[in-house]
Amino acid sequence: MQITLEPIGIIHSPYQKKDDIPIQGAFKPEGVGTIEVFERYAQGLTDIEGFSHILIIYFFHKSKDYSLLSKPFLEDKLHGIFAIRSPHRPNHLGISVVRLLERKGNILKIGEIDVFDKTPLLDIKPYVPKFDQRTNVKIGWLERHI
Amino acid sequence: MQITLEPIGIIHSPYQKKDDIPIQGAFKPEGVGTIEVFERYAQGLTDIEGFSHILIIYFFHKSKDYSLLSKPFLEDKLHGIFAIRSPHRPNHLGISVVRLLERKGNILKIGEIDVFDKTPLLDIKPYVPKFDQRTNVKIGWLERHI
Repeated sequence: MQITLEPIGIIHSPYQKKDDIPIQGAFKPEGVGTIEVFERYAQGLTDIEGFSHILIIYFFHKSKDYSLLSKPFLEDKLHGIFAIRSPHRPNHLGISVVRLLERKGNILKIGEIDVFDKTPLLDIKPYVPKFDQRTNVKIGWLERHI
Repeated sequence: MQITLEPIGIIHSPYQKKDDIPIQGAFKPEGVGTIEVFERYAQGLTDIEGFSHILIIYFFHKSKDYSLLSKPFLEDKLHGIFAIRSPHRPNHLGISVVRLLERKGNILKIGEIDVFDKTPLLDIKPYVPKFDQRTNVKIGWLERHI
């Protein structure tokens, strides 16, 4: 089974080099960029300005391959790719929670961004704590680091 | 630009009909299912059992079309598709936070599930509150309902 997707927009960020990108956007709140939603999808943004945060799903376009075992940024040990957030994963899909600062037509100004400039955008969803947050969470190998 | 993905597994859930599926998994914690990760990707699950929750990205395979304006379950008003969580969206991508109850080889037993049986799985990421949770969140039209 193959699934074919088309970007709905492009993420413009200040980050041209890997070393500039924060491990997660929440760690570098001053990182500001824009999301350009293609005009043909712009009507889908109706009412999004009521939300302070959005979930974005995007394609790690700089990553050309994957490893099932890989070392994360935070530790020099191998872990399964599904237990880390590395871009070098099957399907190369990324998720970030970003702050929605402003909407002007089909352009969203966003904060807490953590992706390369020109990243292809696949979806936007409203971020809703009752849907997306959990308590009593265990974070495995990450407990040692954050 | 076209992006071609292949499922990394299949989500088995108790839900065969739309009306059985909770609006969000957190609202029906007794919903238990399994994720079957295909054998060729199973090594990528190494160390995942340390996490109590995982983020899954999947393909809304029952949804064949999309509308840029649509009515959510919770309200009888139209909103932009990117301001609601409906499956009838461009690229038909879904995200859920589910509870990881047990791992046996390539099979994950999961709780708080909210997808159709046999949903194609595209990615698994560890759920990490410091990455995925925000405070002072505004939720737009949803404020009236949850």
